[in-house]
Amino acid sequence: MTNVWHGGGRRIRMNEVGTRDGFQAETVFIPTQEKIAMVNALSHSGVAKIEVTAFVSPKMIPSLRDAEAVMQGIERVPGIVYSALVPNLRGAERAIACGVDELNLVMSASESHNRANLRMGREQSFDALCDVASAARQAGKSVNVSLSCTFGCPIEGDVPAREVFDLCERFAARMGADGITLCDTTGMAYPSQVAALVRGFRERWPDIGLTLHFHNTRGMGLANVLAAIDAGADNFDASLGGIGGCPYAPGATGNVCTEEVVHALALMGYDTGVDLARLIDASNRLPALIGHDTPSQIVKAGCRLDLHPLAA
Amino acid sequence: MTNVWHGGGRRIRMNEVGTRDGFQAETVFIPTQEKIAMVNALSHSGVAKIEVTAFVSPKMIPSLRDAEAVMQGIERVPGIVYSALVPNLRGAERAIACGVDELNLVMSASESHNRANLRMGREQSFDALCDVASAARQAGKSVNVSLSCTFGCPIEGDVPAREVFDLCERFAARMGADGITLCDTTGMAYPSQVAALVRGFRERWPDIGLTLHFHNTRGMGLANVLAAIDAGADNFDASLGGIGGCPYAPGATGNVCTEEVVHALALMGYDTGVDLARLIDASNRLPALIGHDTPSQIVKAGCRLDLHPLAA
Repeated sequence: MTNVWHGGGRRIRMNEVGTRDGFQAETVFIPTQEKIAMVNALSHSGVAKIEVTAFVSPKMIPSLRDAEAVMQGIERVPGIVYSALVPNLRGAERAIACGVDELNLVMSASESHNRANLRMGREQSFDALCDVASAARQAGKSVNVSLSCTFGCPIEGDVPAREVFDLCERFAARMGADGITLCDTTGMAYPSQVAALVRGFRERWPDIGLTLHFHNTRGMGLANVLAAIDAGADNFDASLGGIGGCPYAPGATGNVCTEEVVHALALMGYDTGVDLARLIDASNRLPALIGHDTPSQIVKAGCRLDLHPLAA
Repeated sequence: MTNVWHGGGRRIRMNEVGTRDGFQAETVFIPTQEKIAMVNALSHSGVAKIEVTAFVSPKMIPSLRDAEAVMQGIERVPGIVYSALVPNLRGAERAIACGVDELNLVMSASESHNRANLRMGREQSFDALCDVASAARQAGKSVNVSLSCTFGCPIEGDVPAREVFDLCERFAARMGADGITLCDTTGMAYPSQVAALVRGFRERWPDIGLTLHFHNTRGMGLANVLAAIDAGADNFDASLGGIGGCPYAPGATGNVCTEEVVHALALMGYDTGVDLARLIDASNRLPALIGHDTPSQIVKAGCRLDLHPLAA
């Protein structure tokens, strides 16, 4: 018997990615003021970090073309880390100018997925990201690298752990990353794999911040979170309402749902610091913004002890 | 670190309840021959047990009014246990006459839910089920008791573990049950609770067959399965496509999805004995039978290594 089922007050930090990973996947343009209001609501729910937006080409991802206005318009609640995804040096300059706390760089553990998603090979991506990391460090910003397809590639299949760790070693030693996120971009992670990879990471780089990014594509999202916690992970990406996905992975559904993870972890005695009622209030506002329901089961069914008195 | 993430060939027996718990919740009448074909497909997928139907009042649950014809029409594959739900002595007589292997009796751990669902108190239910169990034993049939709302009641809230164990003790000692299923009828179970209750049960009744019945109402289904396995459970109810629900629990979605559980457990090295491809084939036939999509994420996204080659 393990103790992973009993949190005992252990601190787990939630990184909300819905306004970036989620909104990016939507076809409608969500008005800037609505984005700002959503980030502010998330700040007041008590999540540890928010990936506010992405400083990407407005032509490539028009739904996030207002990155500057959003970043500059939000309330900055002390203690919360405000992060943004940056694909390149131009994005980094824009993000730094807006005062983000942390730049989140992204490349893929799989050569095929990197070429499909970023239109270059992994070596070229790595070199380019080193320049971005240098710029961030000079500006006094934290650098996190999100490594896509860590748990499998929809084009290649399994990605050897050795290749994942080789890249992590280069992020840590050569790029000077403060944090690394192992991303299950297309929902291929499974608990035994997660436990082994997280344990291997923690043994190799105990001082690098480790975050896990899971999708619930095949129903294993929460089980993967618990396997990661058991192996020593404390930081998790999640998306309000479970929105989001990957346009390069057909059939993929969303990120693990923040309110589902927080609801489960709270019942198990973990301390996420999140006010679940506020989080659910924010999630209830999503359908009006994105034009469709979300996968959130907590929004549909309520919390565990939301009782249903008998009709008279 | 626990070993629950690494199955190491441990045998887990799947009890398919879709043709009972699932079809019962549907409003359309599924033709008898289609039900028989579905049970036969499930038999050839390699599940350990099938809850084929329920011998209930045709007026109360008209969708299962062909219980005799289904039970007598199916192919009986050696090694598979064919079970049926029976609410009372009349149902038991019908089930015995059709040659079921196991009678599954049902009552609730919660007084309010028992009254709402079965229109009598728990004491009256217990006495009535003792008569049913006697009849089953005289006919040489196995007796299983499914105890609803073990992990919480949508009307009362938490159900004390002491009340659950008091009832289990009476099922074991006074009713002579061969097996007991702890049912999370409305998706209120959470992993720490599951681990504690399963461990307590196994310590008290090591010789009684224990099955767990989870719903994925709040996204914790697979995590609960793994917590139960870690605490010593080996038998699980699940429903093809994740269909099913409880009409007395508003907002409740379906049972844990058989193909999602089998897919995850297989990746983790557990031996369910199930041919996943055949199971998915059967699940793909459900929407035509029930008139709507199922919650199955495996049907939507495919298995983990169903790759997506790049378009030319």
